Amino acid sequence: MTTTMPAGVAAARDLVGPAIGGWLERLSPDVRIVAAYHLGFVDADGAPSGNGQGGKALRPALALLSARAAGAPPERGVAAAAAVEFVHNFSLLHDDIMDGDTERRHRPTAWTVFGVGSAILAGDALLCLAQDILLTDPAPQAVWAARCLSAAVHRLIAGQGADLAFERREDVTLDECLQMAGDKTAALMACACSIGAIGVGAPAELAMGLAGFGAHAGLAFQLTDDLLGIWGAPEITGKPVRADLRARKKSLPVVAALSQDSQAARDLGALLARPDALDEDDLLRAADLVEAAGGREWAEGEADAQLAAATKCLAETEMPDDVRAEFAAIADFITVRQN
Amino acid sequence: MTTTMPAGVAAARDLVGPAIGGWLERLSPDVRIVAAYHLGFVDADGAPSGNGQGGKALRPALALLSARAAGAPPERGVAAAAAVEFVHNFSLLHDDIMDGDTERRHRPTAWTVFGVGSAILAGDALLCLAQDILLTDPAPQAVWAARCLSAAVHRLIAGQGADLAFERREDVTLDECLQMAGDKTAALMACACSIGAIGVGAPAELAMGLAGFGAHAGLAFQLTDDLLGIWGAPEITGKPVRADLRARKKSLPVVAALSQDSQAARDLGALLARPDALDEDDLLRAADLVEAAGGREWAEGEADAQLAAATKCLAETEMPDDVRAEFAAIADFITVRQN
Repeated sequence: MTTTMPAGVAAARDLVGPAIGGWLERLSPDVRIVAAYHLGFVDADGAPSGNGQGGKALRPALALLSARAAGAPPERGVAAAAAVEFVHNFSLLHDDIMDGDTERRHRPTAWTVFGVGSAILAGDALLCLAQDILLTDPAPQAVWAARCLSAAVHRLIAGQGADLAFERREDVTLDECLQMAGDKTAALMACACSIGAIGVGAPAELAMGLAGFGAHAGLAFQLTDDLLGIWGAPEITGKPVRADLRARKKSLPVVAALSQDSQAARDLGALLARPDALDEDDLLRAADLVEAAGGREWAEGEADAQLAAATKCLAETEMPDDVRAEFAAIADFITVRQN
Repeated sequence: MTTTMPAGVAAARDLVGPAIGGWLERLSPDVRIVAAYHLGFVDADGAPSGNGQGGKALRPALALLSARAAGAPPERGVAAAAAVEFVHNFSLLHDDIMDGDTERRHRPTAWTVFGVGSAILAGDALLCLAQDILLTDPAPQAVWAARCLSAAVHRLIAGQGADLAFERREDVTLDECLQMAGDKTAALMACACSIGAIGVGAPAELAMGLAGFGAHAGLAFQLTDDLLGIWGAPEITGKPVRADLRARKKSLPVVAALSQDSQAARDLGALLARPDALDEDDLLRAADLVEAAGGREWAEGEADAQLAAATKCLAETEMPDDVRAEFAAIADFITVRQN
């Protein structure tokens, strides 16, 4: 496993970042500043604050690799990469409102700075822009790429809908939770891994192999993310620690723990069912109970299994060796547990 | 002018309603109930409450006429009609949150029933579904229809962004306000009037003539809507009366009034600039001041001028006479001021 960011991710940021900035210019100024703030191009006053892509640019990197897997130069994957990144950030803008999250990427979330209405609108604009990018591509395969993206957006929305509904339910099963994570996280990752190939007219076997890799890697990523949300260091994650527990999110380690028949599981259930807000001591105790009930061990094991399945998909799919190695490096990188 | 709903609007509801219901089935249950409630298919408990389309189904009717204008049967415009209606309702779901509106179509708005998060997500789902509908159409022109819709969505978002920004500004000009209304309302109306024709491969002159008609009719509609928002009967509009004034919206009659150099205009400006909430007497006084400053007369005159421009576009564009007559009937219908 690697702990430093693979070179391909930084290279993707350099290639896709300017394209993203260019597409943002199409938005009206009132909407653009919110989107540009969220993406890290400007600060809250609109002053330039960086080259954008405050996030990890993982999905753009995967989309560029996807084009290369089909034998095309990475430049031909830029539109798809930008579109996927816009969809990802559309969902972050809206999810932060829904979840009441106040911090992302070490900065206040957009809705806390510009208001809920402006953040909703900026998310809408990025979703629309994502489809635009693919629809303005004159290549006949572009419409296939647009369909691939649209299907991923539907699953993303279904997953977020389930995530919200789970907060109000006490009886969420682990299967439901895995389905939710598959929709909310893995579907867009699968899209990122295949859309570049689809956009350059790759054969179906390649697209499906890449999508399979992305789906498994995406689940491994979500499991790792859930683990970091409980035991990760906030200075690394950029988010407040144990925020998911505080919001009583039915994350995968929590649901795995709650599904056990043990005293720790029952204590965890009782703690999370308490009507009052949970203080820091409660949250630490909840984290300990998740671990005692086996939720941490299960999630770590499942993350490893999903990573192995992703690696198997990769091995079984024909593509240039250097591309396969870069895919593998990104999958390793996003599933390293820095805790 | 006609005061009863043109037959084409009810017919469109019968043709497009089932298609809309069918497309909703693609959404996950958690998201679907919110969208179905908003569209009037179900009540807050999910029990069937009607055949959907609580709204006027104007845009679907225009889209079907648009296909007929190009010599195609209305059935070939159904996908475009459903897509436009989904975009319209995506924007209503999100705008109601942004504007804090609690009532629409004589019912509580979706966010007040299901929460802000669920209403955001339902809007997202309808926007995605709208693009999906056009992308799954195998006809080669479908991608042109998808681009037409996407361009309208961008203008719609820009218009709503300006609308939000105007609430925080005291110096909005009438030109800016007209631009905002053109983006927020007229662009989607222009799209509705042309997308059916575009989707069946109509020549550019026809599509542009229809879009011109829709843009002018859309502005006339917005002016009428703004007038009804101040002087209309809530039992007809389905919305609380003077809600726009209460929210200090920079609607067209208000901005026209504020742009005057008169005592009434200055009094209106002072009243709307008051930091405290406006009570019913204040709102009645504000309405009287808009009228005294000439805002009502200007908006009525401008609505008539836009309707005349729409009629001129219609006369100058070649299409079957019965289709032209139905377009004209809808334009008349949506600009009747029931007050």
